[in-house]
Amino acid sequence: MSGPSAAEIVRGVLAGETRAVARAISLVEDGAPAAREIVGAVHRKAGRAWIIGVTGPPGAGKSTLVDALGAAFRMQGRRVGIVAVDPTSAFSGGAVLGDRIRMQRHNVDPGVYIRSMATRGHFGGLSRATADAADILDAAGYEVILLETVGVGQDEVEVVRAADCVMVVLVPGLGDDIQAIKAGLLEVADVYVLNKADRDGIEKLETEIANMLALGEETGRPRPRIVRTVAFLGKGLDDLLRAAIDHRTVAEATGAADARRRERSRWRLLDLVRERVLVWASERTEGGGGLEAAVARLCRREIDPYEAADSILGAFASQAGGRPL
Amino acid sequence: MSGPSAAEIVRGVLAGETRAVARAISLVEDGAPAAREIVGAVHRKAGRAWIIGVTGPPGAGKSTLVDALGAAFRMQGRRVGIVAVDPTSAFSGGAVLGDRIRMQRHNVDPGVYIRSMATRGHFGGLSRATADAADILDAAGYEVILLETVGVGQDEVEVVRAADCVMVVLVPGLGDDIQAIKAGLLEVADVYVLNKADRDGIEKLETEIANMLALGEETGRPRPRIVRTVAFLGKGLDDLLRAAIDHRTVAEATGAADARRRERSRWRLLDLVRERVLVWASERTEGGGGLEAAVARLCRREIDPYEAADSILGAFASQAGGRPL
Repeated sequence: MSGPSAAEIVRGVLAGETRAVARAISLVEDGAPAAREIVGAVHRKAGRAWIIGVTGPPGAGKSTLVDALGAAFRMQGRRVGIVAVDPTSAFSGGAVLGDRIRMQRHNVDPGVYIRSMATRGHFGGLSRATADAADILDAAGYEVILLETVGVGQDEVEVVRAADCVMVVLVPGLGDDIQAIKAGLLEVADVYVLNKADRDGIEKLETEIANMLALGEETGRPRPRIVRTVAFLGKGLDDLLRAAIDHRTVAEATGAADARRRERSRWRLLDLVRERVLVWASERTEGGGGLEAAVARLCRREIDPYEAADSILGAFASQAGGRPL
Repeated sequence: MSGPSAAEIVRGVLAGETRAVARAISLVEDGAPAAREIVGAVHRKAGRAWIIGVTGPPGAGKSTLVDALGAAFRMQGRRVGIVAVDPTSAFSGGAVLGDRIRMQRHNVDPGVYIRSMATRGHFGGLSRATADAADILDAAGYEVILLETVGVGQDEVEVVRAADCVMVVLVPGLGDDIQAIKAGLLEVADVYVLNKADRDGIEKLETEIANMLALGEETGRPRPRIVRTVAFLGKGLDDLLRAAIDHRTVAEATGAADARRRERSRWRLLDLVRERVLVWASERTEGGGGLEAAVARLCRREIDPYEAADSILGAFASQAGGRPL
């Protein structure tokens, strides 16, 4: 079964066709060979969208919040792309966030595109695929792109690095883990969204975040805002939109937005380098510098992990001609 | 200020000296040059410890559970090492889990070693450091090593890959995010610990997990157990210990334990390869194949990310002589 060529998909994406966008995102999600040509072409046309990352621990109500935000941007007449990133579904072979259920809420509106993404690869690649998907939506004319991810770890931090503005969603009742969450997100949050603000503990949570921000080092970025919401009831959405727009205005005026874009390019590049070296190493399984041979010696404790890595990297560095992987 | 040499630290670790263990773990945590010599030496002496990974979403009560498990193993007369891995604290420059508070509970007992770990690096390295720390504790004679990590993402999955047995701690009330959590942890869990089992929703949670396991594919591993606990009250601890011991017995008898150790070596090696290539790329900032030059062109959209990665990898592959990085 042959589908459209990469060039045809690129033309469709640039014309804003939903089917072409969907196909292009599937290809980057799968790490397909055509992804390279597609991203190479659309990357040059991208750069206009406003990308907002939304992250936070499980149960914080991110999906509801993202849907409400998307609706609010639609009311302003902007085209909205939503990418629900699901790092945890790498093993299940598919996103589990219920695309279809969410689509039903928006599917009469061609101005909204919603998509869940996982990754099929064993070497991460999710932040690479997310950044590629944002380029595709951007080139297709979506003016606001919402990247939603579940969690508080390094994965999520890397995914939301693709954003111009990062919203961290927290809720009362996280217990001691709030300490770890705060530390992990300190460097990426532009807006703290205190959701489910009708619950007990909201005052304590806000005080904790405010104290953390007061104690924080000068980052050179605009100081993060704190906004309370009850996304399920639509409460606080206006405040949240205003905080996002304020952040954008200040970030563009101070040069923080440019610095962020540069940092984003750096991470994206390193992420791609990482992924490709790992794919190379895992495919070169036999012979000197072969992965399986090194693993077997490592299991027998004949070599240590650092020696094993040397043998892989030596083989990589000495391969003929420095040709691209 | 010069401390002991790597060789002296190795001797201390092999003699089971707590100060040498602490110093060795700090060196691997910092990615210090001496770490390589230390891990190279202790790796050959390790391989006897029983490593149990404990993960789960924020608020699941993992720390309390790990402390209770540690105490239970001590009652059996085993030496216990606890490593609380904190991927989210990479940005804060230190672990935030409150070492000292936890230490107070055990600090009269020389048979327990407790340590929080973060990582100072910008390229992950936490799963590498965790595996190195496990080798150090193993070589120092700790018979049970508990690796505790907060979260449900790829980071945590990679950290607990260092374990012989993985316990996933869940609690009632995770809402829809339970779907993503279940999918992410499906492939790594050996024991599901349903903690805070005195709460509403415990029946529903257990049914969900049981249904998921019934639907799951054959993995070639022993089928995961489900155990209810109220760790705070010490309830269910005996059942949990029994489940862990059963898992070990079956895994050793069926060859699953060997397969796991082999898989662990593979991941550990790839993780190290990844980290070292990224460190190399980030240090080579200028000139052809230099990181900053590529980032600048990428920002201007003169090249796309894949072309930029080619330039970095080409420079890497063509560097003289294939010498180790």
